[in-house]
Amino acid sequence: MPETTSPSSVRIDPARLQAMMEAVSVFGGGADGSMTRLTLSPEDGQARDWLATWFRKNGFAEKVDPIGNQFGRLDLASANAPVVMVGSHIDSQPNGGRFDGALGVISACEAILAVRETLEKSGGRSACNFVVANWTNEEGARFQPSLLGSSVFTGAADLAWALDRRDGAGISVGEALESIGYAGTDTVPIPDAYLELHIEGDSVLEREGLRFGAFTRFWGAVKYRLAFLGRQAHTGPTPMAARHDALLAGAYVITDLKALAGEFGLDLHTSVGRMEVYPNSPNTVPSEAVLFIELRSGSQAILAEAETRLLASIEAAVARAEVGHEVRSIDRRAAGRMSPGLVHLAERASDANGAPARSLDTIGGHDAISLAAVCPSIVLAVPSVGGVIHHPTEFTTPEDHAFGTQVLADMLLILANEGLSVLEVEKERR
Amino acid sequence: MPETTSPSSVRIDPARLQAMMEAVSVFGGGADGSMTRLTLSPEDGQARDWLATWFRKNGFAEKVDPIGNQFGRLDLASANAPVVMVGSHIDSQPNGGRFDGALGVISACEAILAVRETLEKSGGRSACNFVVANWTNEEGARFQPSLLGSSVFTGAADLAWALDRRDGAGISVGEALESIGYAGTDTVPIPDAYLELHIEGDSVLEREGLRFGAFTRFWGAVKYRLAFLGRQAHTGPTPMAARHDALLAGAYVITDLKALAGEFGLDLHTSVGRMEVYPNSPNTVPSEAVLFIELRSGSQAILAEAETRLLASIEAAVARAEVGHEVRSIDRRAAGRMSPGLVHLAERASDANGAPARSLDTIGGHDAISLAAVCPSIVLAVPSVGGVIHHPTEFTTPEDHAFGTQVLADMLLILANEGLSVLEVEKERR
Repeated sequence: MPETTSPSSVRIDPARLQAMMEAVSVFGGGADGSMTRLTLSPEDGQARDWLATWFRKNGFAEKVDPIGNQFGRLDLASANAPVVMVGSHIDSQPNGGRFDGALGVISACEAILAVRETLEKSGGRSACNFVVANWTNEEGARFQPSLLGSSVFTGAADLAWALDRRDGAGISVGEALESIGYAGTDTVPIPDAYLELHIEGDSVLEREGLRFGAFTRFWGAVKYRLAFLGRQAHTGPTPMAARHDALLAGAYVITDLKALAGEFGLDLHTSVGRMEVYPNSPNTVPSEAVLFIELRSGSQAILAEAETRLLASIEAAVARAEVGHEVRSIDRRAAGRMSPGLVHLAERASDANGAPARSLDTIGGHDAISLAAVCPSIVLAVPSVGGVIHHPTEFTTPEDHAFGTQVLADMLLILANEGLSVLEVEKERR
Repeated sequence: MPETTSPSSVRIDPARLQAMMEAVSVFGGGADGSMTRLTLSPEDGQARDWLATWFRKNGFAEKVDPIGNQFGRLDLASANAPVVMVGSHIDSQPNGGRFDGALGVISACEAILAVRETLEKSGGRSACNFVVANWTNEEGARFQPSLLGSSVFTGAADLAWALDRRDGAGISVGEALESIGYAGTDTVPIPDAYLELHIEGDSVLEREGLRFGAFTRFWGAVKYRLAFLGRQAHTGPTPMAARHDALLAGAYVITDLKALAGEFGLDLHTSVGRMEVYPNSPNTVPSEAVLFIELRSGSQAILAEAETRLLASIEAAVARAEVGHEVRSIDRRAAGRMSPGLVHLAERASDANGAPARSLDTIGGHDAISLAAVCPSIVLAVPSVGGVIHHPTEFTTPEDHAFGTQVLADMLLILANEGLSVLEVEKERR
């Protein structure tokens, strides 16, 4: 295909993008700006149905795989041409925000649509086909681990195991998929590249007055689901020395983890975001406390040291509270780097729009981190006002949505015009 | 009434007692010996219905007051004779045991029945009438505070306020009463004496090889429902220094309370049995942690000192975790003494059965502590195997049930024969 027929620019439609963001926010959105769209909930099912309708109306072929990942494929090249996948997730945290994830799916729809319109107008042909992805359970709020759909997709997690994960009410992923009609049967191949636009979730871009970032490095994470096992007893007569208080053991670990993070300065994040206490009655010594522990670092060495220290803290808590313990699960995600070719492509497209691409670390998980193990992948970022994420006041301006989506569309147009070899070339240059 | 017509002894029927204990254990009982009969639950409703049927078949007149306390009155004297009330509660902790509370209601039925049979045989007349009581929400597991029904009965708690207490699902006491048909309208007067048989819930009797105890002193309690208020944020990117972690603040207080109890040796019990974490998602810094805190002591001075120290711990946790806080409720129950007249009567009846009555402290709450504010009251105790309470393995042998019920029946017969002046006489003797 001669270069002279390639369109040199693509323009996304900010009003259309904004209308789509508003449309999808209806499902699980609260009057206060909050979003509660737990994965595979009725609200998630409604949002997926809305997206399926959008795919159909716009000529995208919908596919749903057995873990419920929802795809919309648009062929602009021959059927066996390389595939560029673009997406994110539309599930949310409980009482979270509207932009984490949803922006990535909606901007993928808009950017691919804009590329098609541009190619149609110019008569140009694409070197690749495009797929929008909406991954199941990115958040890990209802089911653990997070990144479940993308991990099954890449083969990092076993399908049967994933379908058997259960929420706090004992409902499995498989049952939840059936209940909203998203237990699919389609097979979708690994793409040749994966791109994801996301809100930054931190305040680096805002503080530096920048509009755009590329996550070049991702932090690793070690996540423990840890149960302390005590013994139920009356909080009245039971002598203090005869108590085996599982919640007390949990409290020792929580305070230890905070102190541990302090020792490593900015290089280690620790948290216990969820704790389940049983039987959780005011007058009964808790017999079980399940802690959902996270350690995160950009350095594998620090992560390993932190895990050793966590284990020592658990042993100490077991001894002090005189309880037992069980490690119920461990998830480890190694720290790593995003595709240099895609980073360079992001810089090229961003520069062309008059804004440099700031290199960022991503500390939170993204489906692109799952995909990075099997194909060139990247997460692009637009500013979060105040750095807020996982909160109803999470906000990114419509102008920044449009800017990020424009850069994304420009990246896709370059891939359509020049083919995926541009990623290899750029990689060698670095 | 000439003393010569008074029967000198009463014999309870251990087999009948045991059959009743087994019958009531069906409602909420698990195969593992556990009992989950939360107050005003369907299971509690079924157990109440069973008791109402028992009242009807045995000639007791059922009354239900507006807070759902269930009474069965048996007149053995003239209508305006003094009233002796005997009872306890049939609600339980979640996954608790079968004897805490239930024994007190069932033994009251059996003991009063045995006294009537004895009087019928001998042709003797009673100096008093009897009422069985089954108090609403003694446990405080589903609704707080505990001792709710008896506190409303004595006037210590306001009825409208009590009806508006809500469980973790937002259901009010009033709604729960309606749903099981126990929103009563009867007025039941304060009795002239109140007796309650209970399992010890500690291992003093067992360790000393004794069969029977009388609680002569009750510990006081200070209970706080305390909320720490943080801010939701992503546990990944949010810098540690920018976090406002409500659960972390809770953990500081829990570990402080354990250390505080250690300073006071055996004289102070502290606990956090329940904690509600919001939004309780693994990837989100908790914005709210509600702690159900208890301080208990036999000494008012120690209780006051412990409360001062608790407040200091809360202030320190607020500062360290950079969160806000709200005290949602405070319940205070003063330490005190049971009726000396009833203690002496218990000793007399116990001695007559060949077992001394061991003087005990009760640290847990009992409805008799509510009643102690308005009439002579006592809690009698039979041994708990291993001192276990609020656990499925809670156990008191059938022989000890029968022994305790026999002593109770003997006390009731003395009151029937000699009248309630015996309590005043005994009091002066001491």
